[in-house]
Amino acid sequence: MQKLFLATLLALLPSASILSAAPPEPASAQDLAELVLELQEKALADSTALELVRSLTAEVGPRFAGTPGDRAAVEWALAAMKRLGLENVRAEPVTIPRWIRGEESGRIVSPHPQDMVLLALGGSVGTPAEGITAEVVGFETLEAIEGLPEGALEGKIAFINQTMERARDGSGYGQTVRSRSRGPSAAARKGAVALLIRSVATGTDRFAHTGATRYEEGVPRIPAAALAIPDANVLATQLAAGSPVTFHLFLGSRRLGDGLSANVIGEIPGREEPDEIVLLGAHLDSWDVGQGAHDDATGVATVMAAARLIGILPRAPRRTVRVVLFAHEEFGLSGAKAYAERYVESLDRHQLATESDFGAGRIWRFATRIHPLDLPAIEALTPLLEPLGIEWFENTGRGGADLRPSREQGVPVADLTPDGTYYFDYHHTENDTFDKVVPEDLAQNVAAMTSLAWFAAEMSESLRRVPAEAKPEERP
Amino acid sequence: MQKLFLATLLALLPSASILSAAPPEPASAQDLAELVLELQEKALADSTALELVRSLTAEVGPRFAGTPGDRAAVEWALAAMKRLGLENVRAEPVTIPRWIRGEESGRIVSPHPQDMVLLALGGSVGTPAEGITAEVVGFETLEAIEGLPEGALEGKIAFINQTMERARDGSGYGQTVRSRSRGPSAAARKGAVALLIRSVATGTDRFAHTGATRYEEGVPRIPAAALAIPDANVLATQLAAGSPVTFHLFLGSRRLGDGLSANVIGEIPGREEPDEIVLLGAHLDSWDVGQGAHDDATGVATVMAAARLIGILPRAPRRTVRVVLFAHEEFGLSGAKAYAERYVESLDRHQLATESDFGAGRIWRFATRIHPLDLPAIEALTPLLEPLGIEWFENTGRGGADLRPSREQGVPVADLTPDGTYYFDYHHTENDTFDKVVPEDLAQNVAAMTSLAWFAAEMSESLRRVPAEAKPEERP
Repeated sequence: MQKLFLATLLALLPSASILSAAPPEPASAQDLAELVLELQEKALADSTALELVRSLTAEVGPRFAGTPGDRAAVEWALAAMKRLGLENVRAEPVTIPRWIRGEESGRIVSPHPQDMVLLALGGSVGTPAEGITAEVVGFETLEAIEGLPEGALEGKIAFINQTMERARDGSGYGQTVRSRSRGPSAAARKGAVALLIRSVATGTDRFAHTGATRYEEGVPRIPAAALAIPDANVLATQLAAGSPVTFHLFLGSRRLGDGLSANVIGEIPGREEPDEIVLLGAHLDSWDVGQGAHDDATGVATVMAAARLIGILPRAPRRTVRVVLFAHEEFGLSGAKAYAERYVESLDRHQLATESDFGAGRIWRFATRIHPLDLPAIEALTPLLEPLGIEWFENTGRGGADLRPSREQGVPVADLTPDGTYYFDYHHTENDTFDKVVPEDLAQNVAAMTSLAWFAAEMSESLRRVPAEAKPEERP
Repeated sequence: MQKLFLATLLALLPSASILSAAPPEPASAQDLAELVLELQEKALADSTALELVRSLTAEVGPRFAGTPGDRAAVEWALAAMKRLGLENVRAEPVTIPRWIRGEESGRIVSPHPQDMVLLALGGSVGTPAEGITAEVVGFETLEAIEGLPEGALEGKIAFINQTMERARDGSGYGQTVRSRSRGPSAAARKGAVALLIRSVATGTDRFAHTGATRYEEGVPRIPAAALAIPDANVLATQLAAGSPVTFHLFLGSRRLGDGLSANVIGEIPGREEPDEIVLLGAHLDSWDVGQGAHDDATGVATVMAAARLIGILPRAPRRTVRVVLFAHEEFGLSGAKAYAERYVESLDRHQLATESDFGAGRIWRFATRIHPLDLPAIEALTPLLEPLGIEWFENTGRGGADLRPSREQGVPVADLTPDGTYYFDYHHTENDTFDKVVPEDLAQNVAAMTSLAWFAAEMSESLRRVPAEAKPEERP
């Protein structure tokens, strides 16, 4: 498996002379700043991350939790971390729920027959073997369904055709993803036999966008699928003409018994406070469609490449830099929960945690959620990120979905926010492939991540625990 | 079926006062010019074509020759022509060869398993029921295969990974489509058991691009499929690593017996020379994937909308404007051949023929293939196209694939060439859908088509037959 991988990475290893001018003693603020800028320069010229994404997408591909691809990804990550010089490389078992998509299809039966491109929502139950054939009732929002009287959708297929707005910060997602996460139960509560949604997506390419749904307890579980945007448009056009529209849906999806996956971890041990952890996270799993390039091979590659750049410095940072590739983010955060449980005793020595899980657009914003008294200590980093075009946001960061369980225990977190303008064109589709990654943007991600990681690991102050927070809206 | 269609089109019908200032007598050159410019203005403000594309894509969808969709398209076209006011509306039967895709799949088996997105080439034979599993040998061009010694590919799957250049005139297509049209026989001649090609396409979205292939007589017919660009990249990446790559291909495609389709024809009869024909062509069929929006619903809509604009003038043009929606362009030009046979006696009274079959990008170039002595007569049109941003090219036009049989009989042809920069991102894929059509560009197509049609139908000179030509390279 590793032939190409080895060849490309060996060619990229810089000589040992890099940063050899680093001072032998604890760095002053000035030294720290110079080192960060020097690391950025190295990162921007480094193609380690790009080759990691190429390798993970071409040599593993999709790696949905509990599949052979997932197991191959764990092996891949262990081998890659060792080659990159990380230490304490290990796979920590994570029990995961399993679900498989199976065959699936949909078509408008009448008045104007047409096959539809769709994907079952993650976790959806299947249809009966003969499928479901029923009349479609269209809505513009989830709320329109929630406002219906009881039984209003008896025997019908509900269709939510909500359009997502394109935005750099991805804010359109939060407004529309409710149709995916809460739609099936909302429709079932009114009597619907199935739910179709317009894919939660920007762009109009003919890919359906999958993603997890959540059934509420006590409500019938109905099959649910996302239509590609052009197909949602056809359905809407036929509905708008006023004649009844009949749809046939077949989903072969189903839950399987629990399975086993793993968080993969590697470290650059700290020279003075090895038990204080700067956690660089990403998730190793992907959806079952596509190659999971932007979601989240680029994140995996970014944190691994950043750790490597720190690891090849002539002197280790004061604290430990720990790379954590979480299992099973997409469909339950199992790896995130397992990590927070396993390390519950040492979470109070997690200096800072961050996760790269929003694609590899250019980082444009830096945010934290740290103790307010620690803000002055982190302020020194802000001007060091400016050369990369990154501006300070505010102290309301979230740190990424996999960090939620740790954050809820008071672990300080930081966000390096990529430009998400095009992220939702590819997100959770067959089209999330290597070619969509812009090499220069990925390198800038690595430069930002390396800066943050080194700074947090080397700074003199140990960060305080963060006071309990009002639970922020989470991006699923 | 026609509820939406009727509603939208009725709303669009302009009042009878349009162009009511047209002179009662044969138009002078000055009058002709003014009328053309007035028609352009009407066309640019007219959404008839857009609504036709919406209707054909939403209410018929894919219409591969010989399928129920094809039959629905013929009914749709007959009804639409009548509603638009065309006369002599008729369907003329065309016998067509039939082929069906069936199930299909492909995957890299080793060294790194991954499912591939692919489409059988049109006309490909299927694989055995158990599929074909063999080692892949990669090439950059068709010529590299042709240069191999006999038997060099014995038992192997050949893979041509040629990249297509993006170009406004679509010239990259001619350079790469050979891998699709001639690749299977070239590979079979060297012993290959199957052929894979990198889709003949620009862009990198994960759609395979189908299209017709041609088997040579006397050479074994091997199954052939096009990989989506990201999948071709994965295969190339694994091949580049040096280990043998094994591929499993299953194609359920096969030829069926001949079927029946139809050319659909409608006319605006000429007031003085009704037997002289200005032929506006497009093809009604599409591939079996996608909605055939740019290929060729936009062409269908453009010529129908142009004919309507001419038909609602207070006075008919001197000659007849004939809209011909050809059957079965994609896979054998059956409709084109049938037309030239049926009208063989009257081809010498075809004033000019043109076809819209290169998507609905903005028209930027005007070309003809007419008798050199007639060039001065057509010259008056050139400045009238300039306000639309269209420049004169030269007298080496081709007129479109469906016009070849007529052109070979000496019929003068003209080309209005759309900007093809993005055409091959969508061409022959699931992604050729309505949303890819830019309304303003489509209206400009209609304006150009209306100008050309009216001018050719009204001009005083009857065009000469075109001398026999060296057969030009044809765009398949």
